[in-house]
Amino acid sequence: MAKGSEGPVPVVVMGLGFIGQALTRAALASPELELLGAVDPQLADRKLGDVVGRPGVAMKVGSQLAQVLKGRRGVVVLQATHSRFVEVQAQLMEIVRAGCHVVSTCEELTFPWLYHEAAADKLDRAAQEAGVVVLGTGVNPGFVMDRLVATAGQACGQVRHARLERLVDARTRREGLWRRVGMGLSEEAFFEQLELEKVGLVGLVESAALCALGLGMDCDDFEEEIAPVLAEEDLPGAPMVRKGQVAGLAQTVIASEDGVERVRLEVTIAAGVDGPIDRISLDAEPQVRLRIEGGLDGDAATANVVINAAPRVTAAEPGLLTVLELPAGR
Amino acid sequence: MAKGSEGPVPVVVMGLGFIGQALTRAALASPELELLGAVDPQLADRKLGDVVGRPGVAMKVGSQLAQVLKGRRGVVVLQATHSRFVEVQAQLMEIVRAGCHVVSTCEELTFPWLYHEAAADKLDRAAQEAGVVVLGTGVNPGFVMDRLVATAGQACGQVRHARLERLVDARTRREGLWRRVGMGLSEEAFFEQLELEKVGLVGLVESAALCALGLGMDCDDFEEEIAPVLAEEDLPGAPMVRKGQVAGLAQTVIASEDGVERVRLEVTIAAGVDGPIDRISLDAEPQVRLRIEGGLDGDAATANVVINAAPRVTAAEPGLLTVLELPAGR
Repeated sequence: MAKGSEGPVPVVVMGLGFIGQALTRAALASPELELLGAVDPQLADRKLGDVVGRPGVAMKVGSQLAQVLKGRRGVVVLQATHSRFVEVQAQLMEIVRAGCHVVSTCEELTFPWLYHEAAADKLDRAAQEAGVVVLGTGVNPGFVMDRLVATAGQACGQVRHARLERLVDARTRREGLWRRVGMGLSEEAFFEQLELEKVGLVGLVESAALCALGLGMDCDDFEEEIAPVLAEEDLPGAPMVRKGQVAGLAQTVIASEDGVERVRLEVTIAAGVDGPIDRISLDAEPQVRLRIEGGLDGDAATANVVINAAPRVTAAEPGLLTVLELPAGR
Repeated sequence: MAKGSEGPVPVVVMGLGFIGQALTRAALASPELELLGAVDPQLADRKLGDVVGRPGVAMKVGSQLAQVLKGRRGVVVLQATHSRFVEVQAQLMEIVRAGCHVVSTCEELTFPWLYHEAAADKLDRAAQEAGVVVLGTGVNPGFVMDRLVATAGQACGQVRHARLERLVDARTRREGLWRRVGMGLSEEAFFEQLELEKVGLVGLVESAALCALGLGMDCDDFEEEIAPVLAEEDLPGAPMVRKGQVAGLAQTVIASEDGVERVRLEVTIAAGVDGPIDRISLDAEPQVRLRIEGGLDGDAATANVVINAAPRVTAAEPGLLTVLELPAGR
């Protein structure tokens, strides 16, 4: 049995956008963590408590990560800055070289080997040499369509096919997500924004690849399709979506092995969608049909997944990990 | 990222009852494992393939574990012999001293610290000294009401209460289970058999304790109640249950912390029960309401949970582990 750690794990939050603020509040609430500070150049010197809605917290937001981490080896940095691996790569190297762990919400970091193999290997080696862990996680990617699926698959023999569905009513989510799914755009503008990578969810291919790996599949091909969901009638609410406008998107990833579909991942985030719900169907012996009624709340759950992972990484083997390597318990 | 192991993991099956036979077939089917042999004194010298319904398997069933393990350090013994910790304790020590790992379906071994703290600590030390892992798992206890719940709880902040329900139609399960749940007994005979520990499921308190631990609760009190489910009408099928006879049982465990209920685990296994289904409800932020439609097939899933754990234990830190320490992936 694993031994309990000695006292709370020291953490620093990096990036104080919507998710970083939620991480800060969750870290303050967790008996397992001790919040040492937060860094965000755009909010430097403001009172952290004011930024995150916890007036009692007097510490100031830092501007430079290097300053905050100085002399603090072994701290876990909770990073919520970017979605793309290339955007966080330099930051990650800086943190690792400072002898600190990272749990990041960077979507592509959940499985960077998929599209950035050499850079991922380099980061893995650097983390091993520094004796620290780097992990990318969140709810999707990082939990509901990969880690949870792999766990469910522990009860099955060979899994022939996994079908994962997530339906989210966009209106229950944050404004940043409305833009990500193109709410209120014309169909033409949606495809323009898609071309510019301004709409579309990041990290779903990584999630499908992680899911396949966790189920023991050896997928060699990944195809992704992003389509607008058009409002069939006026959809009141905030924001209002008119009939014919984009209500959100349907994003599908198909992972195949030797030309045979093995994983089908479908995320629909739109105003007026049926649901919300998450469904996992494993075609195997025995079959597993798992559903989360009401769906897993993406914003609230992301912060908790990160917060609950932070104490685990300090006990893990050094290196660049995936959520498949995390234990089940707290 | 964890490195792949070198080739299949060598395993030996111990005990060729219903579950041991299923384990043998699953081990033969798994590309991750290599079956070296099987031991069961009552079936010694019979052809293993005949015992498990795989005629092509020519090896003979062994009678003595020591003989089969001789010179085979590092083998994983898949043990399916007894439900009680005291019944497997000596066997486990023998296996550990032979330098071999164990994954066992012994229900009480899923969390032996609960009722056998000193003996569990002793086994833990012996396993650490021998550099091997000992793990108890299965579906219930070992998966659906503990490991899976703890995984689901990764998405939540503090979990105020966990409610776990499992409904199983006893007629879809093996004969040994019919007896365990008292099918066909009179109400009076049920309570006599309960007194003799001939009816009642073993390991549910351990499961509730593991669940609590995995959700970060510190429960100090566990109460268990076992009640017969009486047939309200004649229930045709095999075996026939007459109106007024015992159709099965309802077993409840309540785990509390400082007098407050934190985990409520309810298993109903009876002929004619609604379901089958598994439900997990976590009262937390965010709420999680997870269900497995059709329930997880106990017999088929138990073998797979063990088979999928076997390669994981060879990569784990030595000692007596719980399923909460296993990673999500294969």
